[in-house]
Amino acid sequence: MIVDRRDLDFVLFELLGVERLLERPRFAAYDRGAIRQMLDTAQQIAEAKFLPCAAEVDADEPAFVDGKVRMPAATGEALRAFAQAGFFALPFPEEAGGLQAPWFLHTAVGGLFTCANTAISNYAFLTVAAANLLNAFGSDALRETFLPPMLEGRWFGTMCLSEPQAGSSLADIRTTATPAQDGLYRISGSKMWISGGEQEISQNIVHMVLAKIPGGPAGTKGISLFLVPKRRVGRDGTLGAPNNIALAGLNHKMGQRGTTNCLLNFGEGGDCLGHLIGEPHRGIEYMFHMMNEARIGVGHASIMAALGGYLYSAQYARTRPQGRRADQRDPTTPQVPIIEHADVRRMLLAQKAAVEGAQALSLYCATLVDELATQDDAQERRRLSALLGLLTPVVKSWPSEHCLEANKWAIQVLGGYGYTRDYPVERLYRDNRLNHIHEGTFGIQGMDLLGRKVAGDGGETLRAFAATMREAVAAAARHPRLGEDASRLAEAIDALLETAAGLLACADPARRLANATVFLDAFGHVVIGWMWLRQATVAAGALAAQDLPDAERAFYEGKIVTCRYFSRHELPLAQARLALCASLDATCLDAPVEIFAG
Amino acid sequence: MIVDRRDLDFVLFELLGVERLLERPRFAAYDRGAIRQMLDTAQQIAEAKFLPCAAEVDADEPAFVDGKVRMPAATGEALRAFAQAGFFALPFPEEAGGLQAPWFLHTAVGGLFTCANTAISNYAFLTVAAANLLNAFGSDALRETFLPPMLEGRWFGTMCLSEPQAGSSLADIRTTATPAQDGLYRISGSKMWISGGEQEISQNIVHMVLAKIPGGPAGTKGISLFLVPKRRVGRDGTLGAPNNIALAGLNHKMGQRGTTNCLLNFGEGGDCLGHLIGEPHRGIEYMFHMMNEARIGVGHASIMAALGGYLYSAQYARTRPQGRRADQRDPTTPQVPIIEHADVRRMLLAQKAAVEGAQALSLYCATLVDELATQDDAQERRRLSALLGLLTPVVKSWPSEHCLEANKWAIQVLGGYGYTRDYPVERLYRDNRLNHIHEGTFGIQGMDLLGRKVAGDGGETLRAFAATMREAVAAAARHPRLGEDASRLAEAIDALLETAAGLLACADPARRLANATVFLDAFGHVVIGWMWLRQATVAAGALAAQDLPDAERAFYEGKIVTCRYFSRHELPLAQARLALCASLDATCLDAPVEIFAG
Repeated sequence: MIVDRRDLDFVLFELLGVERLLERPRFAAYDRGAIRQMLDTAQQIAEAKFLPCAAEVDADEPAFVDGKVRMPAATGEALRAFAQAGFFALPFPEEAGGLQAPWFLHTAVGGLFTCANTAISNYAFLTVAAANLLNAFGSDALRETFLPPMLEGRWFGTMCLSEPQAGSSLADIRTTATPAQDGLYRISGSKMWISGGEQEISQNIVHMVLAKIPGGPAGTKGISLFLVPKRRVGRDGTLGAPNNIALAGLNHKMGQRGTTNCLLNFGEGGDCLGHLIGEPHRGIEYMFHMMNEARIGVGHASIMAALGGYLYSAQYARTRPQGRRADQRDPTTPQVPIIEHADVRRMLLAQKAAVEGAQALSLYCATLVDELATQDDAQERRRLSALLGLLTPVVKSWPSEHCLEANKWAIQVLGGYGYTRDYPVERLYRDNRLNHIHEGTFGIQGMDLLGRKVAGDGGETLRAFAATMREAVAAAARHPRLGEDASRLAEAIDALLETAAGLLACADPARRLANATVFLDAFGHVVIGWMWLRQATVAAGALAAQDLPDAERAFYEGKIVTCRYFSRHELPLAQARLALCASLDATCLDAPVEIFAG
Repeated sequence: MIVDRRDLDFVLFELLGVERLLERPRFAAYDRGAIRQMLDTAQQIAEAKFLPCAAEVDADEPAFVDGKVRMPAATGEALRAFAQAGFFALPFPEEAGGLQAPWFLHTAVGGLFTCANTAISNYAFLTVAAANLLNAFGSDALRETFLPPMLEGRWFGTMCLSEPQAGSSLADIRTTATPAQDGLYRISGSKMWISGGEQEISQNIVHMVLAKIPGGPAGTKGISLFLVPKRRVGRDGTLGAPNNIALAGLNHKMGQRGTTNCLLNFGEGGDCLGHLIGEPHRGIEYMFHMMNEARIGVGHASIMAALGGYLYSAQYARTRPQGRRADQRDPTTPQVPIIEHADVRRMLLAQKAAVEGAQALSLYCATLVDELATQDDAQERRRLSALLGLLTPVVKSWPSEHCLEANKWAIQVLGGYGYTRDYPVERLYRDNRLNHIHEGTFGIQGMDLLGRKVAGDGGETLRAFAATMREAVAAAARHPRLGEDASRLAEAIDALLETAAGLLACADPARRLANATVFLDAFGHVVIGWMWLRQATVAAGALAAQDLPDAERAFYEGKIVTCRYFSRHELPLAQARLALCASLDATCLDAPVEIFAG
């Protein structure tokens, strides 16, 4: 099971009302039917080609043999099916050879593949990310040469940012790009953690590489972006000689094992030639322009790992008999399915709350990308851009913490079976654990949220967003069943604003940011609480209809129950965390280094 | 790194004052010097034989080849060194051939091996657990035959409780024991999740098996305990024919991979003969008599997995340069070690709080086992037994949740390196994940705490324990630096008692127990908060001394800082959870089964 299509329909059409977006000229080719058809096709391929080999590509991870990477044939087969269906081209404009689909559709479609097999999907979505960057900032000549084979899935792409000595701190990268003949640059240096950095599936690999042109400014201001192919390419797209990118090692990870993760040496054994993208020294700026999309992608992948665990453990809980209810201890009575135990339902509600709450947020953010791409009004663009910027650290981080927690509960529901590799839930946990770190760690996202997104405009974007959340509170309060939920969220919004104001008033940046991660976590809870209140409000409206089929009634009821679960079990934890932040606690900041053993 | 010996000394001698226990005749052979020497020997063997192969036994897990289990030779070598040092015999009375050490020493010594290599240690500690059961309830004849080879580490032991259809619900086991010749029983049935159930290291395996004698009462009241050897044994201890216990399969787990985990079929291919231990139908009672010790053991193993991660990540954080402080962004300045970042210190404090708080509790509970074993006064025995019973679900469960969380943070501190298998922190997480489930899941422990231990005597034991905690509050309040911590704990104790009273007053057992797991979690936080306040109080006293060396000052300061971290960052979460429990929330209990997808 890789998707709850009823829930996906609910989020897209009932909660987010995406049909409004589809009226815009850019998305003229898409209507509700086209979207469902696209999701059908994706689900079919994901279930046929991605899901069945998920355990295999985990167990039989890529190996470095005779200078090449060997991996199960299933990986290439799955990606060829993905390419044949045109999914590499999905979000790109028609003039670039794309299908010009909205970003929310790319995200939703991607979710099906990621849930089925995140390790294989990575190759595809890194290619889309690299092509996206190329399309946005590359010259016409570069785009003409490199985009078509990437959008056809013949060449794959990668993102080469980190180095062994510089992971989170890009200012300290050492890879250099020295001007060479024909406007090209000689790239020299090592890049670490490169997902898909080497493989034998695609005919070529297009690396997007951050490097410094000697003589430029220090730090991130001196970083430029280069397109560096594994094999050199003629203007007409023909493949030339190898470009001297040596695979120095494969990292062996705890999860997402089927994705190669490489240490690459650029320029080892000869010249490695790269094409400058855009202007010199603007590499970080370009990269961050695409960061919202990339981080929504990682957040969505994290949600999908948890969705896989939730769907599997819910099915297990319905069919596995064990024990009796608290009020029925007679051992001669039959055992009940474990879903009858309150604590098992707690573990399922915790998963449902995290997965469906975060998915609603992630797809909401994806629609903001589409709004932004189709909006001409400058002021509205600024507003959308600020809102998306504010929510991006949340959509990346909240799932990486709380959907990971959901994976933990999925294992727990299965008991001992949960920790054996015969069941998928432990693998989904391992896969998801990486999302907490790559594409900006939890701590980095906290600094981004509080230091840049909230403090950057003196809290203005945050206050505007709070006003938006309060509209949802007002709408919910009109439904008697949601009164408690509405007031609990209202209180949390108040606490959030008050806490943020207190933090902004703190003159010492170190102290202001000392608990930025805790603030991010709590802010995320408020945002997810808002998403739940909105879902519950839609559900309460739908439940007012007469003669709803039982399954529909249960579906909507589930939204209201889970909203209540979130309001009562989760929001109070956010309140406690906000109180800590509001106190400007400096326990961690001031802890002497010497107190730690080890 | 497998131990912080300074901290272990602190807990044993300064916090718990174990020398008081050593004055009792039973432990006459032990003084502070003997204990340190024993720990030295254990550390030496653990570092030389257990730690170096930890990654190997994880990667090269036991395989079923030609009807036998094949595993790395290092496993057997490590266990032989453990046996030669006499550690199998450590906690057993001298008259049984043991070293008559206190249980706290067995626990502390065991911790060193578990931290170094939990997968190998499991074989040893299961043997001790089985021998402990045999020694307590077996006949003289059985003890004379089976104890010596187990205490010498020539024969290993296992515990066979679960079956494929009955994990947590022992009432539903189906294995039968039918009377046969010579007072023996024919054992027939399948046992699942048997750690160490098969191996080729020891000369024989002594299985402690729960089974039902036909015609007995239904449910747990009809369960008896049997000693069932892999190979039959003559009265003089000579090994006889195989006893028809077939290895039906090995489970492949996410962690603790070096420990075989077996599905065993008893009586497949011929008679499997077992010896009744004690009286018929009292198997569960016997098993639960040893449960406190067993559960302290699992809790301690969980703490040790987190200790390994904490020590490793703290060392890494001190030596890994990355980024700059929040108030110093000039990229031309050198990078700082990541321990300089407040958020990294938060992750280290979270680990230290969980590990050292839980270790103090676990060793405290172990001293209660020793108190109980050396106490003649019946009333005092009842008091100690009730207190230990109350704390056992906490000492088993709290680490399995919060020290697992600590392992998560250890991975996070290492960034991308943390999720590669070249570093130990991801393995330690995987190892620890099992402890949340085996020996009674989190949910089961919650029912045990609230349903049996708190409700069983109308809250009397809880109230007496709260009075003990309040003594610590009063003692701490005398130190000005601990005033805030003391009052925060006092408030949490009040909330705990109020919540418990409200739950006890609820007439509906299903509703009373609906949030038992949440109650356990919150109760655990209060107990760990108490342990931290006690540690901080001892530290505050020690800091009053003049001319303390810098390292000592930093050590004690660490206790005070971590107590403050726990009071401010963690206790408020417990308050939020207690408030939920006090509200008798029925969201999970009443959630309709139909609302869950999957």
